[in-house]
Amino acid sequence: MLKKNNSKLRIIPLGGLESIGMNITAFECGDSIIVVDCGLAFPEDDMYGIDLCVPDITYLQENIDRVKGFFITHGHEDHIGALPYVLLEVNVPIYATKLTNGLIEHKLEEHGLLDKVKRKVVKYGQHINLGCFRVEFVKTNHSIQDAAALAIYTPAGVIMHTGDFKVDYTPVYGDAIDLQRFGEIGKKGVLALMCDSTNAERPGFTMTERKVGKTFDSIFSDHTKQRIIVATFASNVDRVQQIINTAYKFGRKVVVEGRSMVNIISIASSLGYLNVPENTLIDIEQLKNYPDEKTVLITTGSQGEPLAALSRMANGVHRKVKIHPNDLIIFSSNPIPGNEKAVSKIINELYRQSADVIFQDTHVSGHACQEELKLIYSLLQPKYTIPVHGEFRHRKAQAQLALELGMPKENVLMISSGDVLEISEDGAEVVGKVPAGPVFVDGLGIGDVGNIVMRDRQHLAEDGIIIVVLTLEGGSGQLLAGPDIVSRGFVYVRGSESLMDEAQHVLNDAVHQLTDRGVTDWGRIKTQIKDALGEYVWKRTKRRPMIIPIIMEV
Amino acid sequence: MLKKNNSKLRIIPLGGLESIGMNITAFECGDSIIVVDCGLAFPEDDMYGIDLCVPDITYLQENIDRVKGFFITHGHEDHIGALPYVLLEVNVPIYATKLTNGLIEHKLEEHGLLDKVKRKVVKYGQHINLGCFRVEFVKTNHSIQDAAALAIYTPAGVIMHTGDFKVDYTPVYGDAIDLQRFGEIGKKGVLALMCDSTNAERPGFTMTERKVGKTFDSIFSDHTKQRIIVATFASNVDRVQQIINTAYKFGRKVVVEGRSMVNIISIASSLGYLNVPENTLIDIEQLKNYPDEKTVLITTGSQGEPLAALSRMANGVHRKVKIHPNDLIIFSSNPIPGNEKAVSKIINELYRQSADVIFQDTHVSGHACQEELKLIYSLLQPKYTIPVHGEFRHRKAQAQLALELGMPKENVLMISSGDVLEISEDGAEVVGKVPAGPVFVDGLGIGDVGNIVMRDRQHLAEDGIIIVVLTLEGGSGQLLAGPDIVSRGFVYVRGSESLMDEAQHVLNDAVHQLTDRGVTDWGRIKTQIKDALGEYVWKRTKRRPMIIPIIMEV
Repeated sequence: MLKKNNSKLRIIPLGGLESIGMNITAFECGDSIIVVDCGLAFPEDDMYGIDLCVPDITYLQENIDRVKGFFITHGHEDHIGALPYVLLEVNVPIYATKLTNGLIEHKLEEHGLLDKVKRKVVKYGQHINLGCFRVEFVKTNHSIQDAAALAIYTPAGVIMHTGDFKVDYTPVYGDAIDLQRFGEIGKKGVLALMCDSTNAERPGFTMTERKVGKTFDSIFSDHTKQRIIVATFASNVDRVQQIINTAYKFGRKVVVEGRSMVNIISIASSLGYLNVPENTLIDIEQLKNYPDEKTVLITTGSQGEPLAALSRMANGVHRKVKIHPNDLIIFSSNPIPGNEKAVSKIINELYRQSADVIFQDTHVSGHACQEELKLIYSLLQPKYTIPVHGEFRHRKAQAQLALELGMPKENVLMISSGDVLEISEDGAEVVGKVPAGPVFVDGLGIGDVGNIVMRDRQHLAEDGIIIVVLTLEGGSGQLLAGPDIVSRGFVYVRGSESLMDEAQHVLNDAVHQLTDRGVTDWGRIKTQIKDALGEYVWKRTKRRPMIIPIIMEV
Repeated sequence: MLKKNNSKLRIIPLGGLESIGMNITAFECGDSIIVVDCGLAFPEDDMYGIDLCVPDITYLQENIDRVKGFFITHGHEDHIGALPYVLLEVNVPIYATKLTNGLIEHKLEEHGLLDKVKRKVVKYGQHINLGCFRVEFVKTNHSIQDAAALAIYTPAGVIMHTGDFKVDYTPVYGDAIDLQRFGEIGKKGVLALMCDSTNAERPGFTMTERKVGKTFDSIFSDHTKQRIIVATFASNVDRVQQIINTAYKFGRKVVVEGRSMVNIISIASSLGYLNVPENTLIDIEQLKNYPDEKTVLITTGSQGEPLAALSRMANGVHRKVKIHPNDLIIFSSNPIPGNEKAVSKIINELYRQSADVIFQDTHVSGHACQEELKLIYSLLQPKYTIPVHGEFRHRKAQAQLALELGMPKENVLMISSGDVLEISEDGAEVVGKVPAGPVFVDGLGIGDVGNIVMRDRQHLAEDGIIIVVLTLEGGSGQLLAGPDIVSRGFVYVRGSESLMDEAQHVLNDAVHQLTDRGVTDWGRIKTQIKDALGEYVWKRTKRRPMIIPIIMEV
């Protein structure tokens, strides 16, 4: 158990440093703990059957009386998605900008938590005092509006947490990142910077979001005879705004499709973040009343997600939209690493249906590249840096940049989730470790699928299962029925008769060897079954199905 | 059943047109069938437990007396890998160039087939007569040496099959692609072109392999104080040659590591395709006798394959090589689509161990880009084109190029695996369909895992299994033991006691409802168990584990 330290600041990332997503960091000082972000992560390929991953919050639960609130940098799932799960255990107020708060409220409503959780909408420049912390929200740019960096004022010094960000001098909506304030805060002295690493391997500068608008204009003017379907991220309200602008310019009606897209657009509209000209949006039911070349669909599914609207259209199972041979589909997105094949599958399917597909130069990133990172370092000139957001390789690339900018090596802190970093002007040191890492959500269960269940699923997926059942007489241990074999996911039994017949023989011999001698020890019988059958099956097939012997007694 | 057609040429791709790999195409004319390539494919993510996929050769088996031979374009797995499986059923002579033949022989030897199969080594320019076919091997370039295009002379006209290729005017070993012969064959008239589409979406020209050699020189000269580990494709002998050249230039000893790398290097060396200066190659056991900065390891695992040498090094389980903090690892490869995450995992792991990693500008492709494709079209000027090799999107991109070059739309033939294309000067038409597509190899079994077994594995992977066993008395149907529940991959039972207890109650009720009324119909009992338990589990967990009721009778 980690001892409290009243005089020093502790920074404890509870997730997000091992892979993309699940961003959550605790800041602790004396009797106060605040938490920045509370995101989920989508499961890796080998996490069979898992819907999503949420952070391990054991440490917050153990210190529940000290936890003061959540500060949320922006409204993406990897920063807000775990709130409905975490709030069940750690119910403290949430501080966020207006759109971010709107998205959080929608999420809480879906989980029936809206009345149970305190929320406060914060403006840029506003300061929130909580315990020994003061937190200021500073305007940034990102692929969702209302993103904020957090200046966290503590007795030990100022920590600047950028959240996910880019520098966009000409954003589609609202102001550019508040570089003046970055400079001002930097001038007064920053103890540590926690900065987005996602694009730290990429040289140069991320293009402005407006560039995509120009591309849309040019594509729309080249394709005036086709229906246009644009797939993009539901949360990229500026992107949607630009598609609507271009559609309006070219006299097309716009349909928004996909549950998350519809939700976010409606939240963003109602809060004034989206400006839709009158008579431009139409309902999907009205689509049939307009000629193809007068319509645009904006849809989810740009990452090839099998259940999203675009996948359903491409696979012919969307109830309201069929792909037409002359449709133009624009992917306004890049595949997130790991989704390349899924995206390619959809592109192939669309081409097979004689649609046109455009997937190049129709997206800009929401994350800062190397030159932007250098700018932030120059404005803030922090004493320490703790690269966050991104895989290890990306954080390492930011660390490399910091070194190139002249930061001493010992001030570049590459820490891991669960590390307890104690930091002050006098030094920085990892002083302990707390539980961290993913908790699996599968259906309604949170955490009831752990490593053992996952290993079983992996084993079952790999080679299937052979179940052996037999019934013994109570006192005598005499074999009354079986042993019977049932298999699933092992071999197709028709066509494998000789294999299964021989397996039955092996099994009979193994069981009779013991029962004929009056052995009644179930453990021995089960072991014998597993060994004999396992060995036979391996010899014949080079596979190791899970073997489950079940004994009944009458 | 497809009728024979003696006067026309038929082209029947048996695989390779739906995804990368498993290239195999039958050409049929009168009483002769020849087969071009015989490749395997690696399993997709959702093909649980499958080691590899081989083509469905039902059509060849049904016409076994007409099949004359295999013509192999080059020695990559997706062109030769299925031979040991297919030859078991269709044992006909194999025609290939020297290195390709060497790699095939090694494969046959591993499968104990070397004495059982006829092989013939073919030189560029040589013509092979088989039935009504004549086949000429034409020199090309690719990421493996001795690649050939095949000019297939038939009564219906000439088919030019490029295999995988690029245009390299300055290859590391041997000659440039024989563009003169392409021109000559084109001048005489080509009925159809079957051309590599892999890079058809990429503009420009693929760089020469020599460019990578220059990059190695520059990296080696910048890193004279570190051990260097280069990961690349085992089969890219020219790449290995260049690494050896650079190592020699900088006075480093070279170790080759990874089973497939060692095999291919030894075959290539013995056939004269690799030129290793004396005293340059050392055994891995000798590594410890040299300082780090005087050694280079060339290793497999550039695609993040979990069992390959580089993965084992990165994960600390390689028996002979540990990563040192100062090592420089060069990925001389690009991730093949689908492998991005696996590669990233290794890069992260290497960085965590404080190694340096370089993965940019250290690879060139082995496939032709758009300008090279246009060159080939201009030299051959075929009447028809049948884009091959690559996903649908890549083949479509080549089709688009052909249209831009002025080919009439109806002469651009986008066919699918299993299509029977009948083609002549008078026209081209798909006249039938034969079985095609992947046959799963799992351990020793070929084809014993089919769709049903795969669906079971997917179901087991997703939600696990609940087994219910009970014993009934023969005549009376009285319940003697059970129902007992055993689950795997569903929930971790400790911690889920209330769920499992309640499931037991639901199950008891369901079974007693029937047995108390004297119902002895096993079908009804099993259905009742599945329904009652399935409904309860879904309500409580939103999961659908596989439920297997097993009834025993004594």
